[in-house]
Amino acid sequence: MTESPTLYRIPPQSGAGFTLKRGDVLVVIDAWGEQVSDLMAFAADERGEWLSSGRTFDYNETIYLTTGHVLYSNRSRPMFTLLRDDVGRHDFLLTPCSTETFEILYPPGTADGHPSCFSNLVQALAPYGIQPDQIPTTLNIFMNVVVDESGRVRIAPPISTAGQQLHLRAEMDLIVGLTACSAEGSNGGTFKPIDYHVIPAGTPQ
Amino acid sequence: MTESPTLYRIPPQSGAGFTLKRGDVLVVIDAWGEQVSDLMAFAADERGEWLSSGRTFDYNETIYLTTGHVLYSNRSRPMFTLLRDDVGRHDFLLTPCSTETFEILYPPGTADGHPSCFSNLVQALAPYGIQPDQIPTTLNIFMNVVVDESGRVRIAPPISTAGQQLHLRAEMDLIVGLTACSAEGSNGGTFKPIDYHVIPAGTPQ
Repeated sequence: MTESPTLYRIPPQSGAGFTLKRGDVLVVIDAWGEQVSDLMAFAADERGEWLSSGRTFDYNETIYLTTGHVLYSNRSRPMFTLLRDDVGRHDFLLTPCSTETFEILYPPGTADGHPSCFSNLVQALAPYGIQPDQIPTTLNIFMNVVVDESGRVRIAPPISTAGQQLHLRAEMDLIVGLTACSAEGSNGGTFKPIDYHVIPAGTPQ
Repeated sequence: MTESPTLYRIPPQSGAGFTLKRGDVLVVIDAWGEQVSDLMAFAADERGEWLSSGRTFDYNETIYLTTGHVLYSNRSRPMFTLLRDDVGRHDFLLTPCSTETFEILYPPGTADGHPSCFSNLVQALAPYGIQPDQIPTTLNIFMNVVVDESGRVRIAPPISTAGQQLHLRAEMDLIVGLTACSAEGSNGGTFKPIDYHVIPAGTPQ
């Protein structure tokens, strides 16, 4: 009999930092539905190496990542492989929401004391020696960004429903930051938790 | 009588590094037509601050940048304003071509000794203390990347013709790297020079 992995809950508008070993599978779960989770990763043995949206778009030749795609670092090394995707719509164009996001794109006053994925990632990754300037575009899991023919970008509510999952296999030892997103516009107007667990490397699937 | 600014030529498959003062206008010219030029920039007084594709997409709500758009840093500060765009098609999704680009996306053997925008930017920016891991997605001037409805990314020849220009006004003091792109697939199969000059801040337009 195999022990079940611990299920972690990221409360609404907060974040978590943790490490993965090569071969571990990170399972990210939209606990209640319509909730975005921003993910950032760095190589555990080389913190200057980071998850790169640009290299990932380059080598997959698409802006929409799903099952079978590999996510690359800025050094063009595989960081994750997407093993299972219940939703089929995630974003890798936009940055984590920040104080400036709420200042520039939201009604006046929104930014005051507003939690943000950026500050939650800064806090979650600080214990691992990651500096704020090292946090680039994140993989915004379950985020529904629609790009029309003219290139215009529109943020729509996530199409994910309660319990839907994305499974990411770590292809190297990693430092990971993960959030339950804090932006009204990305989450259908309400803030929900994100659940995650880790299936250890070598576990029979 | 006003002195004309010096015109610089970046030879095919090479790069240049230089600084701009706030208010300077960088004029990038496709000398012979159908030639991409990758641009990267860092704040001169704070080299941890870099030109961010993600923040730029966020605040402009488009993936295609043209006249009137502002290019932002990772700290959400304006770095450039696009003042004049003769072409209307540039890319900010993909990374500068690199040895790994030629290994992964090109026929076997292409990578051996192949020049790349990434290595040219590394060399051009090293005198300013910029490390290779700090070079993220570049603004790929004149690069024609078509994204279809499914999110698929296709690199087509540039639509730029000889002498067409992009004018970028520096909104802070900047360190800049600029290339004449080295990738066959991005430049219609041939390598041409890129010309640039700088209109100093305060020059009557």
